[in-house]
Amino acid sequence: MTRYELLAQTMAAEIRSGNLAPGSRMPSLRQIIAQHGVSQSTATRAYYLLEQWGLVRAEERSGYYVAPPSKPARAVSRATPGDSATVDISELVFSVLDAAKRPGIVPLGSAFPSPLLFPLSRLAKSLGQAARSVSPWSTVVDLPPGNESLRRQIALRYMRVGISQPAEDIIITNGALEALNLCLMAVTQPGDIVAVESPGFYAALQAIERLGLRAVEIPVDTQTGLDLDALAEALDRHPVRACWFMTNFQNPTGVTLSAAKKEALVDLLAKHEVPLIEDDVYGELHYAPNYPPPAMAFDRHGLVMHCGSFSKNLAPGYRVGWASAGRFAARVQRLKLMTTISASIPVQAGIADYLEHGGYERHLKKIRLAMQHQRDAMIEAIRRWLPEGTQYTRPEGGYFLWLTFREPIDAMALHRLAIERSVSVAPGPIFSASHAFENCIRLNYGHPWSPRIDEAIRTLGELLVHPDVRAQS
Amino acid sequence: MTRYELLAQTMAAEIRSGNLAPGSRMPSLRQIIAQHGVSQSTATRAYYLLEQWGLVRAEERSGYYVAPPSKPARAVSRATPGDSATVDISELVFSVLDAAKRPGIVPLGSAFPSPLLFPLSRLAKSLGQAARSVSPWSTVVDLPPGNESLRRQIALRYMRVGISQPAEDIIITNGALEALNLCLMAVTQPGDIVAVESPGFYAALQAIERLGLRAVEIPVDTQTGLDLDALAEALDRHPVRACWFMTNFQNPTGVTLSAAKKEALVDLLAKHEVPLIEDDVYGELHYAPNYPPPAMAFDRHGLVMHCGSFSKNLAPGYRVGWASAGRFAARVQRLKLMTTISASIPVQAGIADYLEHGGYERHLKKIRLAMQHQRDAMIEAIRRWLPEGTQYTRPEGGYFLWLTFREPIDAMALHRLAIERSVSVAPGPIFSASHAFENCIRLNYGHPWSPRIDEAIRTLGELLVHPDVRAQS
Repeated sequence: MTRYELLAQTMAAEIRSGNLAPGSRMPSLRQIIAQHGVSQSTATRAYYLLEQWGLVRAEERSGYYVAPPSKPARAVSRATPGDSATVDISELVFSVLDAAKRPGIVPLGSAFPSPLLFPLSRLAKSLGQAARSVSPWSTVVDLPPGNESLRRQIALRYMRVGISQPAEDIIITNGALEALNLCLMAVTQPGDIVAVESPGFYAALQAIERLGLRAVEIPVDTQTGLDLDALAEALDRHPVRACWFMTNFQNPTGVTLSAAKKEALVDLLAKHEVPLIEDDVYGELHYAPNYPPPAMAFDRHGLVMHCGSFSKNLAPGYRVGWASAGRFAARVQRLKLMTTISASIPVQAGIADYLEHGGYERHLKKIRLAMQHQRDAMIEAIRRWLPEGTQYTRPEGGYFLWLTFREPIDAMALHRLAIERSVSVAPGPIFSASHAFENCIRLNYGHPWSPRIDEAIRTLGELLVHPDVRAQS
Repeated sequence: MTRYELLAQTMAAEIRSGNLAPGSRMPSLRQIIAQHGVSQSTATRAYYLLEQWGLVRAEERSGYYVAPPSKPARAVSRATPGDSATVDISELVFSVLDAAKRPGIVPLGSAFPSPLLFPLSRLAKSLGQAARSVSPWSTVVDLPPGNESLRRQIALRYMRVGISQPAEDIIITNGALEALNLCLMAVTQPGDIVAVESPGFYAALQAIERLGLRAVEIPVDTQTGLDLDALAEALDRHPVRACWFMTNFQNPTGVTLSAAKKEALVDLLAKHEVPLIEDDVYGELHYAPNYPPPAMAFDRHGLVMHCGSFSKNLAPGYRVGWASAGRFAARVQRLKLMTTISASIPVQAGIADYLEHGGYERHLKKIRLAMQHQRDAMIEAIRRWLPEGTQYTRPEGGYFLWLTFREPIDAMALHRLAIERSVSVAPGPIFSASHAFENCIRLNYGHPWSPRIDEAIRTLGELLVHPDVRAQS
């Protein structure tokens, strides 16, 4: 256990003992430093942990206060059987996301990694510096495609993977989700059919719902990824207008397509003239030495629209992503201008400044290593606390893994009961239009390992024998 | 003329004389300060002006360089008669916007005010400060509806206009355009009919086009604003699903609906149960002492979705706006989460910090006064240089006015020829689906008055007699 975890646990015990009443002011950072003989950074991080645990609340420019005791969790309503899948996927997703963001919850169901893994204070420095020095006229000239120096930095990163991507064709967006949505809008009309992964990222299903499109689900094997034969068959049978796939460290399974399969995928789609929207937001979080080249690396027809982001590997909440949209770049750029005009100008400049001066490579090495260790710790806990025969994926990057239980369970019930025990999981049914994968869950290992997480996995093990969780089928 | 304008003109003469070759480095700020005995702020602003004129280019962290001579402007292609209006409004708009953003152009056709009118360095301070002090967990908890302290500040501003708007129902967006688009999506399905103003903001037409909706255009009188009788008739004749109107300092005419008309509008729409998307981005730029209450102030049914922004009055390029979406708030919030997740977290916190500590009221007083003076100077130039009988609006806020020429002209041709003389205007036809208003243009007076702008109006006067501009009809 690190110094700040120890410190946080000491303070947590103090709060739980009732010595500090809800609403009372916690000692200032300075007092903590003096009392415990720790550094400023240790004290700050301890408070962040207490905040995550829901034990204290930060008031801006004032300090930390003891949080009121957490309310009993509201139960998530069970999906009514017979409901149309296209109508209620969003409801399911939102109820799960809402539950996962409550303070005090062990966020195994969250989509976000721990913000403590990011160089937030160095980034803030870059942001302040850039905001001061950016030309006022950039508010006009940095309209799409976006800040030139940022696009140049992104082009340089493509170059390192062997992709020659002119900076002019990179469009800066408010995070990858906007990039993906704009790419989808650029190549579809209401009623069109789009191929997605199953299990796959629920935001793809939500976008399809929202834009009046129809989804064809292509199975994802938890070892080898997307089933290309099934895709080929779907392309033969349906007028598929676009594919939305995640080729590296897929959400939710963590599986990566081999280079050979990526090349075969690109060839197959080129034969059918179908564009690929490639969601590659976890790519930079590879544990092996090199970035697994995305499918875009094999594209010679401009059919791949590659979408990336800094939200998962550098700057969560800054909302900066991009699309390299091949032959559709001009259309995507216009859609961007018509919907949200541009990403925040000082933020674009701030990220560009960080990429140039902030030590991005050093940070990436650190976070990749942290994620890898957290994966190993998570797998160890799974083997310790979950029933024998539980299958898990062992991702080579990112921070999600996918569990398949041997005995049939009701993952929605598990999610609901776990919330009551202050643990969130992402239940399998939110990852497909048909609410399949009822005996699967996705676990987030993007948080520094702690006894609390270990205990949370143990709780899951206990809940698996609960009568509501044991499926009746 | 101010000190910095004088300094900029001296330096401009130096560059135009050829003494400084394109690409050569300009003197540093420190050198300028020493040489000319001016303050840092005067030197900086002089460089900003030179940059606006297209004479120098800023290189980040390096300094200013003499810009290459500007290339001859690409002509904007004429709209082919017979083209469907719904298809090419975007083309027209984009070609006009592209032309207006070129450096060296007098941007009378621009949609943006001069960035020099904003407290950018004070804002940068707030941004840096907020980015450093914001809790890392805000990246999770500030998901829609958004930063709590920012929403509280916005609710306080509503209170000043007599509107009681709970902070919980305010959704922070990437600028007002996103807010407007999300509101439109929240209440329409493809094929639905939406009422818009004519002339009106082209982004409404683009959104309608993009979402597969149909537009009914309601005439706007340049003195009294929206024609309520025409609206009543349209509501009787068509199943209108939503209205998108700008009630204060309308773009492009600058006209404002009286309080009585706003109330009548709200009543009329309530009778028909039709939601109003109220675009009020110029409201804070009122010249009279008080904010003209928006239509939302009269709403008792939660049918008005009021959209605002900091882009026009405080922080251009920061991309922070909001929607108060009445009974549709939950739906708008979910659409936000599904499309771009959230506005940039540190930027939201930065704006909140500025609103609390930066002197917003003082800044607003200054910018309103500046705009009012610029309006008067613009009207004076119009009367001096444009033909007798040219009608102009005299807005009580914002920074757009609307010209109607007595003789029929071809505003697209005027736009094209003006660009060749380094002046941009916004031609009437981009403000309606039917490309009407051929003898109208919108002028932007959002830039500090200068002899260059006066000269630009004179140029327009000269071009009005050009054979391509005199309409053949």
